[in-house]
Amino acid sequence: MTVPHFGTRLAERVAARESQIVLGLDPDPARLWPQALAAAPADGTPADRAAAAVAAHCAAVIAAAGPACVAIKPQLACFERLGAPGWAALMQTCASAQEAGLLVLADGKRGDIDVSAAAYGQALAGTTSTPFGDVHGLGADAFTVNPYMGRDTLEVLATSARRSGGGIFVLVRTSNPGAADVEDLEVTSGGTVAERVAAIVGGLGADGPLSDVGAVVGATQPEHIGRLRELMPTTPFLLPGVGAQGGRVEDLGPAFAPGRAGGLVTASRSIVRAHEDGGDDPAEAARREAERLRHVAWHLA
Amino acid sequence: MTVPHFGTRLAERVAARESQIVLGLDPDPARLWPQALAAAPADGTPADRAAAAVAAHCAAVIAAAGPACVAIKPQLACFERLGAPGWAALMQTCASAQEAGLLVLADGKRGDIDVSAAAYGQALAGTTSTPFGDVHGLGADAFTVNPYMGRDTLEVLATSARRSGGGIFVLVRTSNPGAADVEDLEVTSGGTVAERVAAIVGGLGADGPLSDVGAVVGATQPEHIGRLRELMPTTPFLLPGVGAQGGRVEDLGPAFAPGRAGGLVTASRSIVRAHEDGGDDPAEAARREAERLRHVAWHLA
Repeated sequence: MTVPHFGTRLAERVAARESQIVLGLDPDPARLWPQALAAAPADGTPADRAAAAVAAHCAAVIAAAGPACVAIKPQLACFERLGAPGWAALMQTCASAQEAGLLVLADGKRGDIDVSAAAYGQALAGTTSTPFGDVHGLGADAFTVNPYMGRDTLEVLATSARRSGGGIFVLVRTSNPGAADVEDLEVTSGGTVAERVAAIVGGLGADGPLSDVGAVVGATQPEHIGRLRELMPTTPFLLPGVGAQGGRVEDLGPAFAPGRAGGLVTASRSIVRAHEDGGDDPAEAARREAERLRHVAWHLA
Repeated sequence: MTVPHFGTRLAERVAARESQIVLGLDPDPARLWPQALAAAPADGTPADRAAAAVAAHCAAVIAAAGPACVAIKPQLACFERLGAPGWAALMQTCASAQEAGLLVLADGKRGDIDVSAAAYGQALAGTTSTPFGDVHGLGADAFTVNPYMGRDTLEVLATSARRSGGGIFVLVRTSNPGAADVEDLEVTSGGTVAERVAAIVGGLGADGPLSDVGAVVGATQPEHIGRLRELMPTTPFLLPGVGAQGGRVEDLGPAFAPGRAGGLVTASRSIVRAHEDGGDDPAEAARREAERLRHVAWHLA
């Protein structure tokens, strides 16, 4: 039995859910929805109680905004800072998102060589053999990776994700000001560092209308998107930076060239904190903002 | 009360322990020392049992080789793949290393923007405020980071480490073949990508004979070390690639220019698997190999 590869699975899921919106989950224990705080147990260590509240917050956000989205994108750092209970909350969040029909794109921006890269693959999308039986990792459908260490590191990560029908999203041109320092350096053999990485990414994926190796391309500098689409014609783009960072869905046109699943729009604070502007119910505000984004992107693509 | 910065603490610790050796801990549950397997509980999930065995393995390795070392370098992926119990084993390993007088350099090669970078700082070297009380992170003395996303991301990571007297080690020129793909690209304004990153790293650290912002410089290509030392005169270098990857301590001379603590030699498999060549006791073989490396590096520097 062959599992369809991640690009195929992604395109099918986008079509089925009529959404290209990826729900970013960056839970800050100091800014959780009120109902999540109330759900935390009265006893336990601060880490146990905070992790339970984080898990309840993520479940509530998924319940409210998830129906308008195709995937969640948990920010691993936000869970890791709560230690072992935080990692358990992350696993719980990923499992409940998948039960709700959402893909999980684990955002950890990992990157390392040979056996260490393979270990990240096991942790995020695979299984680890031990003398005591197999240990299942996070079960993510895809995860973000950092290309600085080169193609060999990306190959190991892509291969380990692919084993379970998963994919990777490689940082190519990010949405922060510091992207100019390394990613935008002009290379003597032509183009920028980001464009060289794009050429590597374009060559790494499995065949199909949509590749199983994606790219992270910031939505804050839409002038890059067209050029990067030329270098990566079938690569799904994960597009952070819409909303709080200033990017606009309306500017993302070229991302959708290989089809709607070619451009995944991530949004976190603009959904999770939507109620902070209007003062209304967090869940209702999140549902409304996610649906608004879904509608704009769907009718643009 | 001011905590001395990481560069100062590192130099003092190297002098006190007469060692520049960093003990890499990349535990593979399928290749643990026999006494660690025996220490695992008879009941529990595979993850619980494997994590207990990993913690016992790391404790045994630290007991054997630690006295010849100045720090441990746990590879975070190897613990994360065991989920929450793996993260608990990581915290236990770090705490016991520090009790034994060793520094902890957490090897996760993290990198992200603003609030996410700060969250990694909290997870690895800081504390997270929650409504239920503060949650302490891993308590690492320093951690490795990836510079692809630029100076602003490194500044946040360095600042969050510095708050507790900690430091970071930025990937500059790594030891894998793929380093040629991005790190060695020539840029039009002069030098390579790695050299541009080196210039950023050289400008980021706190003042002192030794900076609190270090660099990861692979030991497999010693011809890079002299040039990178010029660009980062007071930066501590973390030098992977000795042993299994082919690097030789004898070739690392320029790394030690700012003093012995300017060059930290990491070794993991060559110590932890030293017994596989000779067939003798794992602990005794590890002790001997760590002491041999310590002696070579100390008398070279």
